Amino acid sequence: MSSSNEEKMSKKAAKKRAAKLEKLSRKQEREEATSSSSLPLPLPLPFPLEEDESFSSNYGDVTPKSGRSSWREAVEGKELTDVSNLVEEIVGSEVSIRGRVHNHRLVAKTLFVILREIGTSMLKFVKQLSRESVVERIGLVSLPKKPLTATSQQAGVSLLKYMSQKMYCLSRSLLNLPLVVEDAARSEADIEKSLKVGKPAARVLQDTRLNNRFLDIRTPANQAIFRIQCQVQIAFREFLLSKGFLEIHTPKLMAGSSEGGSAVFRLDYKGQPACLAQSPQLHKQMAICGDMRRVFEVGPVFRAEDSFTHRHLCEFVGLDVEMEIRMHYSEVCMIDCGLSVNHISSVLIILPCFVQIMDLLGELFSFIFTKIEERCPKELESVRKQYPFQSLKFLPQTLRLTFAEGIQMLKEAGEEVDPLGDLNTESERKLGQLVLEKYKTEFYMLHRYPSAVRPFYTMPCEDDSNYSNSFDVFVRGEEIMSGAQRIHDPELLEKRARECGIDVKTISTYIDAFRYGAPPHGGFGVGLERVVMLLCALNNIRKTSLFPRDSQRLAP
Amino acid sequence: MSSSNEEKMSKKAAKKRAAKLEKLSRKQEREEATSSSSLPLPLPLPFPLEEDESFSSNYGDVTPKSGRSSWREAVEGKELTDVSNLVEEIVGSEVSIRGRVHNHRLVAKTLFVILREIGTSMLKFVKQLSRESVVERIGLVSLPKKPLTATSQQAGVSLLKYMSQKMYCLSRSLLNLPLVVEDAARSEADIEKSLKVGKPAARVLQDTRLNNRFLDIRTPANQAIFRIQCQVQIAFREFLLSKGFLEIHTPKLMAGSSEGGSAVFRLDYKGQPACLAQSPQLHKQMAICGDMRRVFEVGPVFRAEDSFTHRHLCEFVGLDVEMEIRMHYSEVCMIDCGLSVNHISSVLIILPCFVQIMDLLGELFSFIFTKIEERCPKELESVRKQYPFQSLKFLPQTLRLTFAEGIQMLKEAGEEVDPLGDLNTESERKLGQLVLEKYKTEFYMLHRYPSAVRPFYTMPCEDDSNYSNSFDVFVRGEEIMSGAQRIHDPELLEKRARECGIDVKTISTYIDAFRYGAPPHGGFGVGLERVVMLLCALNNIRKTSLFPRDSQRLAP
Repeated sequence: MSSSNEEKMSKKAAKKRAAKLEKLSRKQEREEATSSSSLPLPLPLPFPLEEDESFSSNYGDVTPKSGRSSWREAVEGKELTDVSNLVEEIVGSEVSIRGRVHNHRLVAKTLFVILREIGTSMLKFVKQLSRESVVERIGLVSLPKKPLTATSQQAGVSLLKYMSQKMYCLSRSLLNLPLVVEDAARSEADIEKSLKVGKPAARVLQDTRLNNRFLDIRTPANQAIFRIQCQVQIAFREFLLSKGFLEIHTPKLMAGSSEGGSAVFRLDYKGQPACLAQSPQLHKQMAICGDMRRVFEVGPVFRAEDSFTHRHLCEFVGLDVEMEIRMHYSEVCMIDCGLSVNHISSVLIILPCFVQIMDLLGELFSFIFTKIEERCPKELESVRKQYPFQSLKFLPQTLRLTFAEGIQMLKEAGEEVDPLGDLNTESERKLGQLVLEKYKTEFYMLHRYPSAVRPFYTMPCEDDSNYSNSFDVFVRGEEIMSGAQRIHDPELLEKRARECGIDVKTISTYIDAFRYGAPPHGGFGVGLERVVMLLCALNNIRKTSLFPRDSQRLAP
Repeated sequence: MSSSNEEKMSKKAAKKRAAKLEKLSRKQEREEATSSSSLPLPLPLPFPLEEDESFSSNYGDVTPKSGRSSWREAVEGKELTDVSNLVEEIVGSEVSIRGRVHNHRLVAKTLFVILREIGTSMLKFVKQLSRESVVERIGLVSLPKKPLTATSQQAGVSLLKYMSQKMYCLSRSLLNLPLVVEDAARSEADIEKSLKVGKPAARVLQDTRLNNRFLDIRTPANQAIFRIQCQVQIAFREFLLSKGFLEIHTPKLMAGSSEGGSAVFRLDYKGQPACLAQSPQLHKQMAICGDMRRVFEVGPVFRAEDSFTHRHLCEFVGLDVEMEIRMHYSEVCMIDCGLSVNHISSVLIILPCFVQIMDLLGELFSFIFTKIEERCPKELESVRKQYPFQSLKFLPQTLRLTFAEGIQMLKEAGEEVDPLGDLNTESERKLGQLVLEKYKTEFYMLHRYPSAVRPFYTMPCEDDSNYSNSFDVFVRGEEIMSGAQRIHDPELLEKRARECGIDVKTISTYIDAFRYGAPPHGGFGVGLERVVMLLCALNNIRKTSLFPRDSQRLAP
């Protein structure tokens, strides 16, 4: 199709219509600012149109029964593209854009494009489309005669307008939506503003969002969150593969009851008692005993948590690392592995593998934080628009304090803390504030934890067995991960298990793995959802889980 | 330490000792060729030595109790490296090598290095070390005065010898091993050869291997298999990320009973009936309904299989893909996504996203197969040494036949097959042979499967609903994956479910996801273990699962 219709129009008529449409658009924008899912939608009843009206060659519903072949003829040879690709280079070409109906203006993702130059019956068809219906529009890309409105400029199409000559609906939405995407995308600030002016805008509650997650994740902030999550994993892998680590997959189904803990999901496995792995701890250590040297895993972790908090899930994605070390968790160590070749970019790079667990960990997360800033500027902006936050402050060389130093800082600030106990959430937050004030970082490690608060397999300190070769990592005042050197001596392991009240028989498979030569090793584990939550300073971990599972939620 | 000891020795004495050691080494080699785990090990009883003997400054056991600090002094400033890094460039530097005791010669991985120039008491210590114990040796790297034996040349150290001046044991193995790594690494051909000459070598049975997997995976072939597995994933991700796909994680815990199938693991979720996901089908489709456009997942998949076959596991790693399509699974389609930026190599590359499900699939696997050949030559060689196989034959443009064409080929070859049924394993193999003969490829797709043998959510063919927009992919005559266009219309989905005898109420969450605008989409799923198994023509899927789970095995 060419822009012949446009050419035929008198300039005057075009100008008049454009002015009218701009006015209409401004009005819609104002309405939108106060729109709410509780208000009646300004949409007419949906179809059916009369049969002969339901599909013309220029518009209509594309269903298996009707219109599909006419539609196919119409789209033949037209590229299906995205509004974000409407750049100057493609001016003059005829393209097809797929999107959803959004408050009577048609959008592809977050972007609306003004509709013009359509015939009356097609306009009727378009007006009858329900919100969220999937549509495809075919037209010629051309430069606008004057700049578009401020809103469309913000959206990045300031230079272009899109001439719609044909419009097809691929999938209709029900008229009554459980949530309106526009409402779900609104920031708290905008809701408060709307309350002040007496035109209250809807706030979509968390449960409504999660019950209808396939609608909820259509918001710009949610689209961005899961792209950031994907990039966190990419950076995690990229760094570890470059250091000679091997990605492994350990089983989630285990005999017995996991690490002897209580928060475990039990099941029947062909008549045998089984449970879901609470971590890949046992198997990643076995991989080390099997000479894999350095391994990592990205996979689900299951915890039958009873508590319903902002930071606990019953199923999350664990990022787990385990590695051979020289002899002590804080020793500087040079291990060159056979796998020290980075294949990611098809370039052979022999990398020096100068690592120590805590150095590696610090470097790994600095790398992730830096890459996210570099690679996801648009995504971070989309999250900020709905959930404003400051970028994470972190030092080039990650700050490392001993647990005792942390306790001392808290004491000096007047906090009461048990020097051989664990920190509670409140103390963690307080220490985070103190560290931020003193060291200007929101990312730091606390190490040499009291043995009493760590698992039995944690290596005690050589000089004082009340403490252990272990560490926690904090981001914005919240614990994000734990790690430690593990006991690789089977006798010491048995002794510590007994001291911790564990029946050694129940963990014999685990202990036996160390009886045939086990190198010194250590590792750490972190939840992907928690990394993204704290990176973006979100207030709830459910925001960073695609389909969260908690003590009360098992669907969708 | 310098090589002063060596310099002090008279040339004559050195020559004599070298000759003696070489003779000894040859003898050991001959013994090794017929060694077996069933024969008594030629090792003296393990420790204890007298207390004062157990640690000198030059050798001994490094345990938390004794020797650790002396050892630390000895290794201070010495790089810990790998035998594979003993290249000419480091001749003259003093390094530390970690390895395991292997049949009285000391190896790091598969490689042994001849021991010389050690004192009598240290020799005593070394001789007493049990197989598989973890040791660290410190010495000066120097060029040998004459070439090493053939065996060490094969192992790649022809130019170098390694002077051992100090030797420490970091972790002792029990003397009686459940399997000897050397036996586990033996090829069938070598076992048969040993039988012919009347000196039977041990064959380690599969169950013995799997029961002691942390020992079994120390063999060169197993080390290689899991590196290949890791590289398959890297290539899978690399390709899909470059095409604008987003990596997601879907929940493994689900309400009810998964896709209504019977082979499901059930469990109690805080009082609610739950099950483990048999595939990410539901949730990856929901992600598409949530406008994620193109997604993939790498994660565990659970099937409560009853059958005990060479190709079924109860838990495996699923590689799953789901994508928006134009309208039909075989249509050529151009979708440009916002995510079409390849961040992997920190370079912004805008990629044209010219895809169609089957084209994408063909390209994806050609990419994986090619990358494995390019990136894993050593690993493939290690696998071949124990399990010989021919490289996979595949065409640059993946062969695609319709199901009907496949049936026709089988019929012409005199096979009896049901034209509207599924192919059994035998027919699959036969067709694989016929395709290989005719088209010279061991990798091909069969599409337009009979609807009756596909899940209810498969889109029927427009022209004949007895067939469906679906496909299977075959490698070396075995089905490796299935895929299809899905039904995105909720009414048609309900209708098909009813026709398949499924109670629509039980899958309402699934169907409801399509009621608010669903774009046409399709996808496929494949098991990582099966890809690696067929790539390397291995005879059992348990060989490519780190800790396999089958109908009889839940440990270790």
